[in-house]
Amino acid sequence: MTDALHDLELHLATIVDLRTAAAVLEWDQQTHMPPGGGEARAHALTTLSRLAHEHSTSDELGHLLDAVAQGDLETEANTRALLRVARRDYEHARKLPAALVTAFTHATAIGPEIWQVARATNDWNHFAPHLERIVDLTRQVAERLGYAEHPYDALLDQYEPGTTTAQVRTMFAELREGLVPLVKKVLAKPKPAADSPLHQPFSPEAQLAVAWQIALSWGFVADQGRQDRSVHPFCTSFGPHDVRITTRTHPNSLAPALFGTMHETGHGLYEQGIDPALARSPLGQATSLGVHESQSRLWENLVGRSLSFWRKHYPALQTAFPQLQATTLDQFYRAVNVVQPSLIRVEADELTYNLHILLRFELETGLVDGSIKVRDLPDLWRSKMEALVGSTPPTDADGVLQDIHWSSGLIGYFPTYSIGNVLSVQLWEAAQRAEPGLAAELAAGEYGTLLAWLRHNVHRHGSLLLPNELIQQATGEPLNAKPYLRYLHAKFGELYGLDG
Amino acid sequence: MTDALHDLELHLATIVDLRTAAAVLEWDQQTHMPPGGGEARAHALTTLSRLAHEHSTSDELGHLLDAVAQGDLETEANTRALLRVARRDYEHARKLPAALVTAFTHATAIGPEIWQVARATNDWNHFAPHLERIVDLTRQVAERLGYAEHPYDALLDQYEPGTTTAQVRTMFAELREGLVPLVKKVLAKPKPAADSPLHQPFSPEAQLAVAWQIALSWGFVADQGRQDRSVHPFCTSFGPHDVRITTRTHPNSLAPALFGTMHETGHGLYEQGIDPALARSPLGQATSLGVHESQSRLWENLVGRSLSFWRKHYPALQTAFPQLQATTLDQFYRAVNVVQPSLIRVEADELTYNLHILLRFELETGLVDGSIKVRDLPDLWRSKMEALVGSTPPTDADGVLQDIHWSSGLIGYFPTYSIGNVLSVQLWEAAQRAEPGLAAELAAGEYGTLLAWLRHNVHRHGSLLLPNELIQQATGEPLNAKPYLRYLHAKFGELYGLDG
Repeated sequence: MTDALHDLELHLATIVDLRTAAAVLEWDQQTHMPPGGGEARAHALTTLSRLAHEHSTSDELGHLLDAVAQGDLETEANTRALLRVARRDYEHARKLPAALVTAFTHATAIGPEIWQVARATNDWNHFAPHLERIVDLTRQVAERLGYAEHPYDALLDQYEPGTTTAQVRTMFAELREGLVPLVKKVLAKPKPAADSPLHQPFSPEAQLAVAWQIALSWGFVADQGRQDRSVHPFCTSFGPHDVRITTRTHPNSLAPALFGTMHETGHGLYEQGIDPALARSPLGQATSLGVHESQSRLWENLVGRSLSFWRKHYPALQTAFPQLQATTLDQFYRAVNVVQPSLIRVEADELTYNLHILLRFELETGLVDGSIKVRDLPDLWRSKMEALVGSTPPTDADGVLQDIHWSSGLIGYFPTYSIGNVLSVQLWEAAQRAEPGLAAELAAGEYGTLLAWLRHNVHRHGSLLLPNELIQQATGEPLNAKPYLRYLHAKFGELYGLDG
Repeated sequence: MTDALHDLELHLATIVDLRTAAAVLEWDQQTHMPPGGGEARAHALTTLSRLAHEHSTSDELGHLLDAVAQGDLETEANTRALLRVARRDYEHARKLPAALVTAFTHATAIGPEIWQVARATNDWNHFAPHLERIVDLTRQVAERLGYAEHPYDALLDQYEPGTTTAQVRTMFAELREGLVPLVKKVLAKPKPAADSPLHQPFSPEAQLAVAWQIALSWGFVADQGRQDRSVHPFCTSFGPHDVRITTRTHPNSLAPALFGTMHETGHGLYEQGIDPALARSPLGQATSLGVHESQSRLWENLVGRSLSFWRKHYPALQTAFPQLQATTLDQFYRAVNVVQPSLIRVEADELTYNLHILLRFELETGLVDGSIKVRDLPDLWRSKMEALVGSTPPTDADGVLQDIHWSSGLIGYFPTYSIGNVLSVQLWEAAQRAEPGLAAELAAGEYGTLLAWLRHNVHRHGSLLLPNELIQQATGEPLNAKPYLRYLHAKFGELYGLDG
């Protein structure tokens, strides 16, 4: 029994090591690799992925799982959790026939290139047949994986284990009900102060340094991580003591480096906070993408876009960037919180962002249950965007073709963005309840208590708890959009002078 | 047959991909990894190495090699070479019993730490029992691998396939005969101009930039490689289109960055020049460490320490480092070619360097054939150093304990350094014979003809040719120390005003 557990842990550690190696290769690809390196890198990554898949689906792993499950696990909560996660991953991987995996891998490998051409030429018909194929394969995947109520459950479960379509549908209904009228009210107000102070020349080196200082002040451990530059910002982890964030700098815009790094720092603090005893085990990874996003959003939005934060830190920012001397604290705070509905999700402000996600959720669930056809997507996109955000994309490139996700097979992924936003405020409020002095500490630029609370209630658990268990345990309630809506109403009500 | 060859190539490509991934992880470890990352990195590297070893010794690989060998290979030189290299690697790996591999891996994994303590405390007895164990295991390895004449043949063959101890012994006899009297003559001359111009404050950023410019001017392809900083300079390759060199900068010394980068550039040009058609195959690697070293030494010493080079490039160096304005070209040329016998190999000048290697070769062959005991090493070291370089190390830390190699199991490796030096001049002279205008081109700062000749005669072949075949084909003669001795006599004879 002990031997079987030891062998199981070694087998799973091999899989983690292979994925860690792949993560290092991907990090290098995004940050340092010379242009010539692409072909060899693709080969090496494919081999690592194939070997990880072979180890994840081997008969040997099945035997080890069975052997350990037959032992006496009463007293070992971690072993039970390990079996739960490892068996889920194993059965998931074994349920998919090799032919389906190959077809899906191929379709989603060539997908992004086809999508890129379609978007660049605004040619929906170039992408549509390919998307039909991906949707068809995705529906096959869902059928193979199995589900209780809705085929979308099976897809969602890949990113948000144990969370159901019904649960997400309820969350989005609340968001829609609260957000659509709020956005209307805000937009009826006079146009806000412009965000032009954010659009000036800013030295990229100074942007990197300022963003890194913020990350360190929040508790990111410098000698257990790094900051590098990349075209698309991201966070990656090679274990809790080697967590890397990247920063995108724009020579004429401060926001991408500043808030992008805050966002990735939130992800990075989660990764650095996972109990090191769980390293090299499937338990040593974040429990879900939604919980991960709650950490990035909490630090980016609830800390990083708050008046309290900038009251403390704006003078230092002005010292680093003298071009901000002419902008007052209040002007700066309004600039980083301007509401400007956009047709493009990644350019959306805090208030309208989730309406973009809702739109995708409605389309995805329809595609997966067959009630929506791929050919209907462009029209549906336009009408839903009009209803939700109040404007219609003039082209498909600004509409249904704007996101890479579907072309790379990520269907069931979008809701994790909104789960993260909603959960960020639930956790924020729970932390305030547990630590009455928290607001004063944050106002003083002290982040230790907030980080300690998040480490204790979220980070350290890794995948020991399912997302729903973690949320219940940390906040005393299930996933629930009300705190998030309350927060948005209060913040933007004050910024835009709305009636309570 | 075609199927078997295809399967063999895929199997070998998997091994190359795993080793490439490991090389990326090692590069990152030396250049970017935060201190916290060490433990997880060691695990990932161990797993990659284990999987590569499993694939290298699998029954499946043996069957594939047999199946391909039974086909008709008359017309396919590359397939024959592939079989030669792949079967050698396979049989080599299969000859070593798992218990011996484990014992050797363990002893040489903990060895460097034990050695480090011994050197720091000048305590030979701390290291000696451990070295005895490593020598014993190394002798077992040699017996298992097998050899024709001397057990050292088996060890040498790991780094210099097909080269024999007898061949190397002849080379070292010639070197000893030529070098010992030459060094004596040089040292009898008045002390040369000091190398103090090289020891001033130099901006590390400018050092990096200057060294990189030299690498580019020699033909290193920028978008198929990188330069980074590291504590120990090295070159690594992830395929011919992603070759990376590193530079060590010292705030008060110019030589490490300058000549270290030239050295690594020589290695890098070799890696960039290997035929891309050989990528992901065992044929896509350098044929031996000695041939590799010939490339680094050729560029570092024959180009980079020549008067012709500095006549052309010294003005630019003075512009980059105005502190050199007071140093004339002649003074600078003498400074970078000062002969100052050192007790420490890595600090040795061009003239005495090979005497250090000779000493290790004599000791290693004795240890391996049993004519020398570990306990006799400190005394032998002292007496041999006195005979070869004319001075005796005051401590073991400056003597027998100075190199890390033995502690990490590298016995049979040292001769490749001298093979590289000797071969560099053979190739240099062959290139001059083939390209009569070469000296004038080099004097004009044009390196294209030299690089093209090296690419054609050395680089592109990868492991298609054995070292001895490559040397014969490129230079028209076997490995031979005479050209190297001629070169040293001419260069240092002129620098030190010796009689012809």
